[in-house]
Amino acid sequence: MQLENEAGFREIEGGACAAAGFAANGCHCGLNPDPGKNDLGVLYSERICNVAAVFTTNKVQAAPVLVTKSHLKQTGGKAKAVIANSKYANACTADGEEIAEKMCELAAQSLGILPQETLVASTGVIGQRLPIQPIEAHIDRLTADLSAKNHEKMVQAIMTTDTRQKEAAVEFELNGKKCRLGGMAKGSGMIHPNMATTLNFVTTDAAVSVPMLQKALDEVVKVTYNCLSVDGDTSTNDMLCVLANGAAGNEEVTAEGEAFETFKKALYLTLLKLTKMLAADGEGASKLLECSCKGAPDLDTAIAVAKSVIRSPLVKSAMFGRDANCGRILCAAGYADASFDVHKVDVELASKKGAVLVCKNGLGLEFCEEQAADILSSDEIFINLDLNQGDASAKAWGCDLTYDYVKINADYRS
Amino acid sequence: MQLENEAGFREIEGGACAAAGFAANGCHCGLNPDPGKNDLGVLYSERICNVAAVFTTNKVQAAPVLVTKSHLKQTGGKAKAVIANSKYANACTADGEEIAEKMCELAAQSLGILPQETLVASTGVIGQRLPIQPIEAHIDRLTADLSAKNHEKMVQAIMTTDTRQKEAAVEFELNGKKCRLGGMAKGSGMIHPNMATTLNFVTTDAAVSVPMLQKALDEVVKVTYNCLSVDGDTSTNDMLCVLANGAAGNEEVTAEGEAFETFKKALYLTLLKLTKMLAADGEGASKLLECSCKGAPDLDTAIAVAKSVIRSPLVKSAMFGRDANCGRILCAAGYADASFDVHKVDVELASKKGAVLVCKNGLGLEFCEEQAADILSSDEIFINLDLNQGDASAKAWGCDLTYDYVKINADYRS
Repeated sequence: MQLENEAGFREIEGGACAAAGFAANGCHCGLNPDPGKNDLGVLYSERICNVAAVFTTNKVQAAPVLVTKSHLKQTGGKAKAVIANSKYANACTADGEEIAEKMCELAAQSLGILPQETLVASTGVIGQRLPIQPIEAHIDRLTADLSAKNHEKMVQAIMTTDTRQKEAAVEFELNGKKCRLGGMAKGSGMIHPNMATTLNFVTTDAAVSVPMLQKALDEVVKVTYNCLSVDGDTSTNDMLCVLANGAAGNEEVTAEGEAFETFKKALYLTLLKLTKMLAADGEGASKLLECSCKGAPDLDTAIAVAKSVIRSPLVKSAMFGRDANCGRILCAAGYADASFDVHKVDVELASKKGAVLVCKNGLGLEFCEEQAADILSSDEIFINLDLNQGDASAKAWGCDLTYDYVKINADYRS
Repeated sequence: MQLENEAGFREIEGGACAAAGFAANGCHCGLNPDPGKNDLGVLYSERICNVAAVFTTNKVQAAPVLVTKSHLKQTGGKAKAVIANSKYANACTADGEEIAEKMCELAAQSLGILPQETLVASTGVIGQRLPIQPIEAHIDRLTADLSAKNHEKMVQAIMTTDTRQKEAAVEFELNGKKCRLGGMAKGSGMIHPNMATTLNFVTTDAAVSVPMLQKALDEVVKVTYNCLSVDGDTSTNDMLCVLANGAAGNEEVTAEGEAFETFKKALYLTLLKLTKMLAADGEGASKLLECSCKGAPDLDTAIAVAKSVIRSPLVKSAMFGRDANCGRILCAAGYADASFDVHKVDVELASKKGAVLVCKNGLGLEFCEEQAADILSSDEIFINLDLNQGDASAKAWGCDLTYDYVKINADYRS
């Protein structure tokens, strides 16, 4: 998966350690019975970072979400480290918050920082107690070998049913200073966007104030991650943190303007790439689906329509089956929570193998089924809607629905 | 599937022709290439009926939905016949309304009634033109053999991926007069409730005014069909009509009171049974799931929570895999669009094989996995939530998510 081309932005290696001053590590501490699977990771910056974050909107909030929010509140949005584990979600158990706090204390002690400067994230099974002992036993060894080179070890530590590591990073300039922004993502399971826990740690050496960092994150998340995951339909543990340590030496971005726009673009390109990687690695996925909705009367309508199509299990099944079923696409657009005239809608299905118009002015068209099936045999499918009633546009990402999705989720705990 | 026991109501045979004065028939007219599959049906009452109906809320409305609405408006809620077909949805094609009107004209001419006294419904593929010629060629033969005995032939005519015929009927008394109410339902595909077209024709020989019929229907649908299908997430063709011909000779129900409550109960018992039959016959379903939510602060909260759990693909997959995964249930309850305290919630999983408490006060419990898996091996599973914060309760129905769902929907059109 390539970063979208954009003048002034260069894709680089290094993920969440591409930015100067960040180091990471991951290890197998024993939460997971598989000795080859990393299950504990730490991300660290010696310089204190400004932090922006978004969290799950589920009423059931995992302990690490509550503890991370509390720490950010205590510090006014500052942090130096993130500790994260897989295998246990640390949600819906009696002493979850104590355990999450203990994780922060262990990391902080080992790193010589304050517990409240530490953020914590977990992913895995809900309702089972997260044992602290394996973490306690391995934390010192883990922090002793923190290095920018070890970013992949941490990525591996937060993966669950993910089949691929997900990292992205970009280099850009702010007021003549070279800056970097990169991140790692964990998440899978996208039949309906309510199911994946997605953990995301993004770092940058750009200096950006906490309010502007949060503003950039909120705006970018709306058109990237939130077009993968439906508002309110999130897991108990979802978390996306951006840590900015200012090591690039640029003048801090404290207001809107050219520098803010450039920074926001870097964040957008990185989160866009991670969003697509998350969609393509949906549980059981064989195809990445991208639904674009243009010609909408406003942005919210465009987003609502694109998301409604991308989350329809009938559309997802049809894409798996190479079935150019325009009726299911129109139906899903039709029940989107938005107002528009369905009699103006055009629908095109496309891939690198070509494109076919299947619907014009809300009416199904005759088309060559063989050609359409060939187009849909690609591993990246574009469902393009034109509402023909305005200038707004948006995209949403998802994946097809396959036998393997059911297989993975019928026995996730075992 | 048994009708729920209720004093004063007796389950009877006959479906939509159990009520006096109704006749039906179905045949293979040739819309479906399979010569053994009925694809055209007619339901008829010589006495003019009062009609109440609910329709899809999708912005994309199939032609038969538009035409039926228009006819009911023209007649002030009166009808004598319903014509229905499968194989083609008659949605999103250029001359759909003309074709739907033509279907009504053909039925009306053949029956010697007015076209606007005829309602029309279709189910099948969206976006492909419904050919009228096979209907024209068979309508006279179809209406010539209308009979109360032939109700199953019409049920067969509206089935698509349904694997079972769905009918229910009940006998009861209104002011000393014996009345009957019964119906047929078509629908399948319930992974997420947005996908099934469900057609439902309910008849009664009770005399009920149009406004009271609609009032009863609206109230009953809220706690039956709408707890299977999420508002706004409906197909282009969904329709539920109740036709009351007054043949029982009771004094017309024109206001609230005891008779209205008795009639509403008869409607509830019938729609409840049909709802459960629809859920159990969800595409690929191997299990009927019933989620009850009690102890809620109000009815809307109880409904929202029960529906959120029943529609979660992760819960559905877990039930297929016999996985007593309380975390997924809590998570789905947590993203329900409702306000409640998650720290008071208890969750029990039950079947005829027993019951196991998996969550108390929002916290996961230790339990015997073998016993839980045995309970979940039943073909009817009860997910019982107690919010412990009020007196309201509601139920929702669905099915598990299986490999067969994906198989059915990956190649529905072929």
